[in-house]
Amino acid sequence: MRIILDGMGGDNAPLEIVKGAVEASKLIEDEIIIVGLEEDINAELAKYSYDDDKISVVHASEIIENEDAPVRAVRTKKDSSMVVGINMVKNGEGDLFISAGNTGALMAGSLFNLGRIQGIDRPALGSVYPILGDKACLLVDAGANSECKPDNLLEFAMMGSIYMEKVIGRPSPKVGLVNLGVEENKGSTLTKAAFELLDKSHMNFIGNVEAREVPMGACDVIVCDGFVGNVILKLTEGLAINIMNLLKEKFTDGTKAKLGAMLLMDKIKGLKSEFDYTEYGGAPILGVKGPVVKMHGSSNANAVKNTILKGIPYAKENVVGTISDAVFDIEEILTEEE
Amino acid sequence: MRIILDGMGGDNAPLEIVKGAVEASKLIEDEIIIVGLEEDINAELAKYSYDDDKISVVHASEIIENEDAPVRAVRTKKDSSMVVGINMVKNGEGDLFISAGNTGALMAGSLFNLGRIQGIDRPALGSVYPILGDKACLLVDAGANSECKPDNLLEFAMMGSIYMEKVIGRPSPKVGLVNLGVEENKGSTLTKAAFELLDKSHMNFIGNVEAREVPMGACDVIVCDGFVGNVILKLTEGLAINIMNLLKEKFTDGTKAKLGAMLLMDKIKGLKSEFDYTEYGGAPILGVKGPVVKMHGSSNANAVKNTILKGIPYAKENVVGTISDAVFDIEEILTEEE
Repeated sequence: MRIILDGMGGDNAPLEIVKGAVEASKLIEDEIIIVGLEEDINAELAKYSYDDDKISVVHASEIIENEDAPVRAVRTKKDSSMVVGINMVKNGEGDLFISAGNTGALMAGSLFNLGRIQGIDRPALGSVYPILGDKACLLVDAGANSECKPDNLLEFAMMGSIYMEKVIGRPSPKVGLVNLGVEENKGSTLTKAAFELLDKSHMNFIGNVEAREVPMGACDVIVCDGFVGNVILKLTEGLAINIMNLLKEKFTDGTKAKLGAMLLMDKIKGLKSEFDYTEYGGAPILGVKGPVVKMHGSSNANAVKNTILKGIPYAKENVVGTISDAVFDIEEILTEEE
Repeated sequence: MRIILDGMGGDNAPLEIVKGAVEASKLIEDEIIIVGLEEDINAELAKYSYDDDKISVVHASEIIENEDAPVRAVRTKKDSSMVVGINMVKNGEGDLFISAGNTGALMAGSLFNLGRIQGIDRPALGSVYPILGDKACLLVDAGANSECKPDNLLEFAMMGSIYMEKVIGRPSPKVGLVNLGVEENKGSTLTKAAFELLDKSHMNFIGNVEAREVPMGACDVIVCDGFVGNVILKLTEGLAINIMNLLKEKFTDGTKAKLGAMLLMDKIKGLKSEFDYTEYGGAPILGVKGPVVKMHGSSNANAVKNTILKGIPYAKENVVGTISDAVFDIEEILTEEE
């Protein structure tokens, strides 16, 4: 398998990207192709010893920046590492594309260049959601589609379910719909209609889930529109940072507190890792005709390594083909509905 | 002033409601009228010594339960403590109504019996949002309106702003719109249009706020539709509980940890109170023709006492009248828009 890596995307590119690729390469048989400014990437590669049968570089002269307007960027920067990388998957020169770059551009580029899987109306971004003290779950949509129809939520559930089963290895994943209450008749026009569709599906749909239950690990696949998904992810991040800062403040307030904190140090350290979801890999773009994974913009070498290792099943387990087949189930539910 | 208290609403009624009323009564000059099953309430009152010029009971034979369908309940249970209490405000027999009962019924009852303030399309529920290590803010709408138009968000901002200034005493409150990004052109059709309206208002509108910034105290009034508001409140609650449980688990894991936790005990205790927003009072229903406040269903006597004390300015500062006057500003913005 050939993994295409965007050498220029993210805050720490190409330094941490290249370092992560070298680390991952030591653990896998697959080939890694880093796309970007050849000179810069080779300069980084020169720092390490690696098997040059397994790591190679493809030159791309442009870089899509985080500030670039997504659609415009992928349309105009044709020789950017991102567009070149996506096209390599399209042309069969690669099996998986991973980037820490501009999320909107990655979404737009995947959509324009790879195209949607037939029958999928709205490709989505899946994001691993950390569950404290338990196994993480997948949130779909994590922010790609701020306005959705009920059919879209059904698609998100199906794609998330397949990804969770095939890539994360969670059998018969529990699918929950984010809603105002657990009762069937609760919610907005969108969630009420989506509930009906999900209820007819063959998925392991457990019904409505209140936002309160999400961090408790109520389900394996959290389904919601991209606006709500963004709120859930960002609020979780903000609260976690906030609580950690508050703890730090309280635990350094006076000698007694400092002594107590010292005794608890190993436990507190463990706490931070509970929020670290990089062990589950990056965020998959679901519903396009090729496996594309988004890494966090601030990914360090370790996160890059993990994303590569955990991303491999997205291609090897033929998730794209499985989604493509499952479209028929969705179409049946929607036809019944009409 | 006469404060009307729903004696039968909430998980701990009438016991904690009556106890809280007696405690509040010792601190204020105002009269408290407890509505509900006379016999039960008098039995509770008999446990305490109180000034019977300041606490009285009005009988109501029915109780609206949490499980009752809101609209049906207020339509059929005309002699419930909730409906009788709301009508006392309507008829000038009381100046403020406070209930820990069924939120939907309280909303519906206020809407049907008091009516909307002229020019307000959608009354909303405001909820105090705890900011760790800083002053709380007000979230509007907290779940009453799961689908909204841009005009509604403008109304929510205006009503929340007035409440925050007059009742909580925050001068020139900063208003923020929950959105996917801080840039002006970000978001859904709803938030983009709401941004334009808010930007034209005389409020202290600071622009879009990402969910990540909400717990950091980015603004004093958080504006969003009721679906998103519910997600923000419930997710915060769930995460806080989850993190507290995890801390408890880690801090009791082994002798060393237990010793450390003992030294930190006073700091940890303080932490829990950071999430305690009862000191700011209950959740106001905004946009109806009379001050109505919702208390948490599980309110204990202390929460009841606080809600009474903090609720008084909702009536005394003439918030309803101020909202009524401010409607003209909103109408001007909307007329310009057309």
